Amino acid sequence: VVAGVSGGSDSVALTLLLLDLSKHGGFTVAGLAHLNHGLRATADRDGSFCREFAGRLGLPLVVECVDVRARARENGLSIEDAARRVRYEFLARAAASLAAERIAVGHTQDDQAETFLLKLMRGAGLTGLGGIYPRRDGVVRPVLDATREQLRAFLTEAGVPWVDDESNDDVDNPRNRIRHRVLPELDRAAGASTRPAIARASSLIREDAQLLDQLSRERFEAVAKRGPDGLELDLAGLGGLPAALMRRVLLEAMRQVSGGREVGLEHVESVMAVVEARHGGVDVPGSRAQVHGRTLVLGQQKGSVR
Amino acid sequence: VVAGVSGGSDSVALTLLLLDLSKHGGFTVAGLAHLNHGLRATADRDGSFCREFAGRLGLPLVVECVDVRARARENGLSIEDAARRVRYEFLARAAASLAAERIAVGHTQDDQAETFLLKLMRGAGLTGLGGIYPRRDGVVRPVLDATREQLRAFLTEAGVPWVDDESNDDVDNPRNRIRHRVLPELDRAAGASTRPAIARASSLIREDAQLLDQLSRERFEAVAKRGPDGLELDLAGLGGLPAALMRRVLLEAMRQVSGGREVGLEHVESVMAVVEARHGGVDVPGSRAQVHGRTLVLGQQKGSVR
Repeated sequence: VVAGVSGGSDSVALTLLLLDLSKHGGFTVAGLAHLNHGLRATADRDGSFCREFAGRLGLPLVVECVDVRARARENGLSIEDAARRVRYEFLARAAASLAAERIAVGHTQDDQAETFLLKLMRGAGLTGLGGIYPRRDGVVRPVLDATREQLRAFLTEAGVPWVDDESNDDVDNPRNRIRHRVLPELDRAAGASTRPAIARASSLIREDAQLLDQLSRERFEAVAKRGPDGLELDLAGLGGLPAALMRRVLLEAMRQVSGGREVGLEHVESVMAVVEARHGGVDVPGSRAQVHGRTLVLGQQKGSVR
Repeated sequence: VVAGVSGGSDSVALTLLLLDLSKHGGFTVAGLAHLNHGLRATADRDGSFCREFAGRLGLPLVVECVDVRARARENGLSIEDAARRVRYEFLARAAASLAAERIAVGHTQDDQAETFLLKLMRGAGLTGLGGIYPRRDGVVRPVLDATREQLRAFLTEAGVPWVDDESNDDVDNPRNRIRHRVLPELDRAAGASTRPAIARASSLIREDAQLLDQLSRERFEAVAKRGPDGLELDLAGLGGLPAALMRRVLLEAMRQVSGGREVGLEHVESVMAVVEARHGGVDVPGSRAQVHGRTLVLGQQKGSVR
């Protein structure tokens, strides 16, 4: 396993816990991976800390610098979305270079609760509220059930330092406002920490989503086929689906032809309206959804070069 | 339709909007229904207001007084849960006495967002996050997509008074803290009102839940039957279900034998553990879940009279 490290308490604790766990066999820690996002004033300090940390543990460290802002511009993504994509692409390269089979990252129950509320307030629908997955696509999150407070207590007791990211205190950033303002008020309303409850809700939603995604994949295979003009979906088959499955089938179809662009719920809604009308068309990210007879074709947009 | 009225802005606006809408035909307003929960200091004032309001509109008014605290004690419910049950039982009686086919209540988008966050912080899982249904079990909620602010602006413009419930300002009450503290902070994080986003998430979860509930009912019919000792569930059939369906089938089974007691997620979890072990048993609300050979029997608890 390769561990992604920022130098913060979560990833430093993750690394130590992984090393401890690896003594029981079953896996080894192949090394650490640190990405300089080109976003923080403290990037150099964080990089130095990680080099020293890896050196002290006798572990190889893979470091890369990327321009997240440029990536965000290129793909029409928010800085947070671009940073996430760039980070996992980097971690996959780091894993390959260290011959690691898994990537471990230090998300905590705090991240889970914050992510849930962030997605909620932004109108997350089909997949967002499932939040952060404990294991998925080769990435594992062994400290997802631990709180940040628990990990910091563990490091303090072990006498291990970490670096603080001052940008985490800026409440103009939505995630930080959720951390420092919204969650404490929600805790007060509940009379206890609400992180475990939010994490559990998130986990149940993932469980539901897993089944619905599986059913949707089966339906997708049944109604979709590649045609000369793009991806073709059978309108009669689509129309017979319950809304929960139709949304997911349309989302999957649009993702397949989006060329990496973000597909949102509003695009699903607009294509659903076309499916219900069985007539007309609408532009969606990277393609156009157009009714041709008994088929919905997701193909190239008008005006684009064939 | 009979409209449930408290005297607050939401139900007063609901009544006027229903009367307006009824001019276009399709339904008539059979009357109003007001419940005195025996909880508020302002109950007499609210009752008088509703009598006067109904009189001014020339509509019959059904009034009842109930002791919600006693009901909460009897059924081991929270005051809020007991009040909700008592209210809908009363509204059903009021509808019957007025020969109304539907019950209309004044829930708003604000209630939807508050309910979602309340359920979330309390660890709602399977069904809770779907929030408030626009129409269900003979109850309709025509102003669920409107905000409280919109309804008050409408009343102010129309020159129609309503009564304020001062208990809504007490932030020691969890719902009020969510209304006055949590939601405004969440709005600040998002840079806009988050009520529409939460309402949309809630609506998507309802859509998903509708399909999963339907699939679960089919599975329940396949694995459950009445036996001499109680409700019998086939362990092999249960064991083969995806977790999302197993939880719902077990919840439905426990509800059928709970005698009206609240069945929670923690009970589902404990019975799932018994199903996985295929051995042993556990007490759940109103019954005991016990493995007998290839069957899980939900029957009377040990020590209870047969």
